[in-house]
Amino acid sequence: MNKQIPSIKEAILKAGIKDGMTISFHHHLRNGDYVLNNVVDEISKLGIKDIKLAASAIFPVHGQIVDRIMDGTISGIDTNYMSGPVAEAVSSGLLKEVAVFRTHGGRPRAILERSLIIDVAFIAAPSSDCMGNINGVRGKSACGSLGYAFPDATMAKKVVIVTDNMVEYPNYPISIDETNVDYVVAVDSIGDPSGIVSGTTSVTRDPVAHVIARKTADVIEASGLLKEGISFQTGAGGASLATAYYLREKMRSKGIKGSFGMGGITGFYVEMLEEGLLENLIDVQCFDLEAVESIRNNPKHLEVSSSFYANPSAKSCAVNKLDVVVLGATEVDVNFNVNVLTDSNGNIMGGSGGHSDTAAGAKLTIVVANLLRSRLPIVVEEVIAKVTPGETVDVVVTDKGVAVNPKRQDLIDLFNKAGIKVVDIKELKNLAESISGKPRKIKLTEQIVAKVEYRDGEIIDYVYKPE
Amino acid sequence: MNKQIPSIKEAILKAGIKDGMTISFHHHLRNGDYVLNNVVDEISKLGIKDIKLAASAIFPVHGQIVDRIMDGTISGIDTNYMSGPVAEAVSSGLLKEVAVFRTHGGRPRAILERSLIIDVAFIAAPSSDCMGNINGVRGKSACGSLGYAFPDATMAKKVVIVTDNMVEYPNYPISIDETNVDYVVAVDSIGDPSGIVSGTTSVTRDPVAHVIARKTADVIEASGLLKEGISFQTGAGGASLATAYYLREKMRSKGIKGSFGMGGITGFYVEMLEEGLLENLIDVQCFDLEAVESIRNNPKHLEVSSSFYANPSAKSCAVNKLDVVVLGATEVDVNFNVNVLTDSNGNIMGGSGGHSDTAAGAKLTIVVANLLRSRLPIVVEEVIAKVTPGETVDVVVTDKGVAVNPKRQDLIDLFNKAGIKVVDIKELKNLAESISGKPRKIKLTEQIVAKVEYRDGEIIDYVYKPE
Repeated sequence: MNKQIPSIKEAILKAGIKDGMTISFHHHLRNGDYVLNNVVDEISKLGIKDIKLAASAIFPVHGQIVDRIMDGTISGIDTNYMSGPVAEAVSSGLLKEVAVFRTHGGRPRAILERSLIIDVAFIAAPSSDCMGNINGVRGKSACGSLGYAFPDATMAKKVVIVTDNMVEYPNYPISIDETNVDYVVAVDSIGDPSGIVSGTTSVTRDPVAHVIARKTADVIEASGLLKEGISFQTGAGGASLATAYYLREKMRSKGIKGSFGMGGITGFYVEMLEEGLLENLIDVQCFDLEAVESIRNNPKHLEVSSSFYANPSAKSCAVNKLDVVVLGATEVDVNFNVNVLTDSNGNIMGGSGGHSDTAAGAKLTIVVANLLRSRLPIVVEEVIAKVTPGETVDVVVTDKGVAVNPKRQDLIDLFNKAGIKVVDIKELKNLAESISGKPRKIKLTEQIVAKVEYRDGEIIDYVYKPE
Repeated sequence: MNKQIPSIKEAILKAGIKDGMTISFHHHLRNGDYVLNNVVDEISKLGIKDIKLAASAIFPVHGQIVDRIMDGTISGIDTNYMSGPVAEAVSSGLLKEVAVFRTHGGRPRAILERSLIIDVAFIAAPSSDCMGNINGVRGKSACGSLGYAFPDATMAKKVVIVTDNMVEYPNYPISIDETNVDYVVAVDSIGDPSGIVSGTTSVTRDPVAHVIARKTADVIEASGLLKEGISFQTGAGGASLATAYYLREKMRSKGIKGSFGMGGITGFYVEMLEEGLLENLIDVQCFDLEAVESIRNNPKHLEVSSSFYANPSAKSCAVNKLDVVVLGATEVDVNFNVNVLTDSNGNIMGGSGGHSDTAAGAKLTIVVANLLRSRLPIVVEEVIAKVTPGETVDVVVTDKGVAVNPKRQDLIDLFNKAGIKVVDIKELKNLAESISGKPRKIKLTEQIVAKVEYRDGEIIDYVYKPE
């Protein structure tokens, strides 16, 4: 038996891709990915139409597929995150079908429950052997964890590995194994290393972000969760990662050792692991070279599937073991609903990713945001797109004040005791509006361009084309 | 959510075990296992009847369940190997239903294809956290690989972890993860360490085994497969492991480095890995402490599922990458069919395990056996139970001569060129009979006590109760 196929084109033919089928991709190569573009190009050249793209995320690098949306090659998109030209095209109503936005936990749920059926999964692999045993830790395109590709590998009818690093059998470590793989294609390059992982992810120098982060660390301490064995996730950017910086300071000074850090992993978390401030890292995606290096060499740094991370239909998943999550927002409304999908003008520029999964799972969910951004209020009456329901958000920390979800009276009491001033979230909205003026109501057409599927499968909102 | 259950009895109740259900076990604790006995005891005390036992193997330590066969608790057995009192009971016709003998690759095929449906899997775990992330490498009952339990964990309706070593969340490395686990039960001890793994597995001192092993190594060399990148599997005992000893000598003297060793892994293979004579070990089961130590610490020593090892319905499996396998036999017949299930009197005392899987997969399948054992011919006219079909066996090496399957004329030519005398297998049978006398035909009743299912699901033979 030989699984090696000389080209992507032949893999498409062998896998039997036809009009109307669903093909899937994972996003660990992020803004350096070549594989999605190349596969879609070849499909287009073969004259195949009406393909549904089930990509765990779509980045600016994938901009060229806008042409494939225009020519009818791609008619549907199912994803957890979208930015760049494809997002703009979807916002403009160019996609034939309504796009589906899921969460990082909702996607494996849908795949494993067979409500999202993948005909052919294309899995970019930084290393593979001839039978399709792959990992993400070796080779010029090393990206670390391959966690988002696990459900695709398990459930797709056909699985095609695309690699630029063929190694001897058996490849190891084995992240996804040959029992699920149909074909292996060797190509010159699966991606641009500079787009796959950045260098060191450094903590922001933005002073406003530091104001928010310091306050957030105080909030966590006041909640009582900053104690031996704490587990947490913060984003990789801005005030979110800066919060990890202040948490680390507090852990050091109090001599507290945590349990695990989770999420997209950066060098900052690797340092905490190596310093013994965290016992483990639970990693669905590596954000920088330090993280890739660590997951390659440190057995305490665990590669996990997206199902392990956040699937609400699994018998359990790791987000439920989180003490604290610190999340960003493009908008938060007075009912604590969060938008991370559109900007303030209603244009798509993101998606939940693990936002609503971790919010639902963590004991303490904190949303951090500047009160205003580009002179626009971030705390608003009603978010344009409800991605993370307010009932899963406990605290909103802005540079101008801290608001607590009224259902968490326990937190309000603790914060009062600790001298943290708590304001009504409506006051934050009013304060923002008093600075910027009441924002004009954005104008949306009646054309639905996307729907927001919550992690459990319920459609909780629609995204309309802006005027 | 709390998966921790205070006792096996409560796990049985929570999992909802009822009359007629199928429960499964893995056999990595081998002859030291306490878990199967304890679970069956509790089921019996609850008055539940007609349970089908899907255990990957059954050992002498499980002798006490003969009473549970007698009292109707257990009415069916589905296994790959059986020895000791339970095997005797099945041979004696005491089991209500016909026992099913599968192979190590056929079992995961049946489970993953849902032809063997497991209601509740009980998985003995040398370490677990509160959510059921487990591995076999840490703790007083460490057994190494948990490969045979992987399909059970994936497919069983309910999964119960039984452990004597609760560790902090997240346990690591993660061999079987929490997404598939319903309950976790902590007990004092899951097994007797002295029965789980032996000390060093030493190469036999039996001079006849060494005659066979030296000849077998010569046969492998003559086949042309003893070259850079060779992969092989040998059993852990007798002439089979001794063959690995002579192979190692040849590899050292010729400066040959191999690819991988596979199967149940012993310290001998660990030495070859550490010496650089093998690049990897592919391990479904550890046989001794050296193997457990190695799989814990050496990333080149790979834990794999039974599906990865040998499942013929997987998109590929590792037995197909084997160059050479050296296997034992209780009987071989003149059509090269092999029996490893009954003794010469027709009593059940084993089973295929990976025998027929590796025979089907390897480029060169060698069966090694003494021509006579306890004054009984091993090469016979027709085996009592056909476990491994003759068309998958290439060479039979005995202490009195080498026979080659006539369909492998290529090997006959190579052996002739190398000066290895090849005899017709009928000559071996005649030679054995000329020494021991023609064996009397054993007498079997018409009662079928077991059926032999080939790895692909076909029933290829029946086992009858001896008179």
